[in-house]
Amino acid sequence: MFENLGFAAYDGVALDDAASLVPIDLKRPNPGTDDVVVQVQAIALNPVDEKQRAALNQQQAPRILGYDACGVITAVGSGVSRFKPGERVMYAGTTKRPGSFEQYQAVAAELIAQAPANLTAGDAAALPLVGLTAWELLFEKMNFVPAAQANKGKTLLIINGAGGVGSMLSQLAHWTGMTVLATASTRHFDWLARHGVDVPLNYHEDLIAAVHAAGYPVVDAVAILYATEPYLDLAAQLVAPFGHVGAVATPQGPLDVTALKPKGASLDFEFMFAKSDFHHDMASQGHILSQLATLAAVGLIDPSVTTRFDKINAANIKTGLRTLMAGHQAGKIVLDGPFEA
Amino acid sequence: MFENLGFAAYDGVALDDAASLVPIDLKRPNPGTDDVVVQVQAIALNPVDEKQRAALNQQQAPRILGYDACGVITAVGSGVSRFKPGERVMYAGTTKRPGSFEQYQAVAAELIAQAPANLTAGDAAALPLVGLTAWELLFEKMNFVPAAQANKGKTLLIINGAGGVGSMLSQLAHWTGMTVLATASTRHFDWLARHGVDVPLNYHEDLIAAVHAAGYPVVDAVAILYATEPYLDLAAQLVAPFGHVGAVATPQGPLDVTALKPKGASLDFEFMFAKSDFHHDMASQGHILSQLATLAAVGLIDPSVTTRFDKINAANIKTGLRTLMAGHQAGKIVLDGPFEA
Repeated sequence: MFENLGFAAYDGVALDDAASLVPIDLKRPNPGTDDVVVQVQAIALNPVDEKQRAALNQQQAPRILGYDACGVITAVGSGVSRFKPGERVMYAGTTKRPGSFEQYQAVAAELIAQAPANLTAGDAAALPLVGLTAWELLFEKMNFVPAAQANKGKTLLIINGAGGVGSMLSQLAHWTGMTVLATASTRHFDWLARHGVDVPLNYHEDLIAAVHAAGYPVVDAVAILYATEPYLDLAAQLVAPFGHVGAVATPQGPLDVTALKPKGASLDFEFMFAKSDFHHDMASQGHILSQLATLAAVGLIDPSVTTRFDKINAANIKTGLRTLMAGHQAGKIVLDGPFEA
Repeated sequence: MFENLGFAAYDGVALDDAASLVPIDLKRPNPGTDDVVVQVQAIALNPVDEKQRAALNQQQAPRILGYDACGVITAVGSGVSRFKPGERVMYAGTTKRPGSFEQYQAVAAELIAQAPANLTAGDAAALPLVGLTAWELLFEKMNFVPAAQANKGKTLLIINGAGGVGSMLSQLAHWTGMTVLATASTRHFDWLARHGVDVPLNYHEDLIAAVHAAGYPVVDAVAILYATEPYLDLAAQLVAPFGHVGAVATPQGPLDVTALKPKGASLDFEFMFAKSDFHHDMASQGHILSQLATLAAVGLIDPSVTTRFDKINAANIKTGLRTLMAGHQAGKIVLDGPFEA
């Protein structure tokens, strides 16, 4: 019997290596003053899990990854008044503390929100990381207005519209009245349409010509949800004056952003762990999650789960991560408990 | 007697060359439907004048530079209802049409605003280009709020705080309650203090250490009003998570913006001619100028004129441009008419 079963990574060995994620028994955490402790019921996977794991170099202490969870609060710190044991919550958490690949996880109360009652734990776990990324990019970095129909007449082009962040971003933009153009494989065009995309674009084709042919000489914003380099020049050509080019990937070297200057355009980096890494306005993430929960509760956004596992174990996590890293996944992969060694 | 005396540039010869700015007689323009024609009373100089002139290559038609003017409307187009002849207005205009180095200039009505009654024509001419640049950078690109005390608790670091744009930016930021740090030569520290700067920084010293020593581990925004390259790394180190790094200079090549990513920071290019170059939201510039006029009328911003000439002629324009290009000028250089061949 485990006190707190977790899946630990110590080194960036191949994902298929038996040592890549090791079941271990952890101490059950006590909540810090401003923490809650959550019994994790479901987790969702993200590329950041595998990127962080692959970059590990002989950790002495177990590194517990996992940045999307839904679960039930079992304990609260003395400084926490907004939540109480028994409530079901969702969160992404922070890379600075153990993640959700464990049965009992301590997380700062300001980073969490109540999970929508009408969602399964798996669906709720699929919302936080992609929802925070999409919300922050669209409303905090690109400065569109987070309210129904508030951005009518504005246009957004999403590069990689069918992925986890893309599927959330298209729905949020659609909710605010924007016209959404998005690239994907043609086999995902139905998926795009169901997630608020007005103009699907085949990512194999000449995108500038396709955007122009669809009737848009420029777009107000371009979200590059893929490597930045291959799409930066296209984004600079298509973005409107004073427009926004968003990027979520770390550049591999210097970027030629010269073409943004004559348009007075912005290059907006979005990184949802920046707030918790630097203890900057962390409470805003709990607030954003509350708004995402409301939108999900009334059906205005869908958690976009396409792959479900019914046990949280090392084999399922690895299978899910392999699928994610292959790069053709539409929507989210969730593991809807229980934990199993 | 000239019908419309102008100073024409045909080629990027040395500024001291007699052919660099040639007095010529132009046809007096008729207003287009949405234009006004202005009898120019005063102009202000900007580095963009000399940069554009030096880049010219054997123009057949005269190129009339000049992007800051105050004057009296002599005619209005049939579509113009907001202005009438006799009104005194100010504007920067557009690089796509003849500028203000001429006695009678046609300009789109949406790009102009009434000049403050309590300002001389020279002071009013000093406001538009730097005012538009500073306003757009601070309020449209960096998204601070354009209202008195609205940004209290926020911090702005200005690289080159004593120049034309810097002096306007510091005053606008101060008006909105921001704490302003700015670099300059120590001999301009009094100037900085009179223009809303709270923390003057000697640009010869280690700026990161100086900002930290002043009690600011990070700042919410950094405005690089100089070449971007030498200050980008410093800006990335000092900018707060989700903060803004503004730039007004065209990069000379690819930029290493990698350090902005972990902070989720933005690189905001500001170029006040982007709106008129692309016919994008041009009316916003008339609206901004109206607000600048109001702030100047009540003394909340000062046009920051340090050098005045009392005739608009080629010799004075050249002397002023030489001073500007030397790069040590605090504030603005104005030529307060009349025109003289």
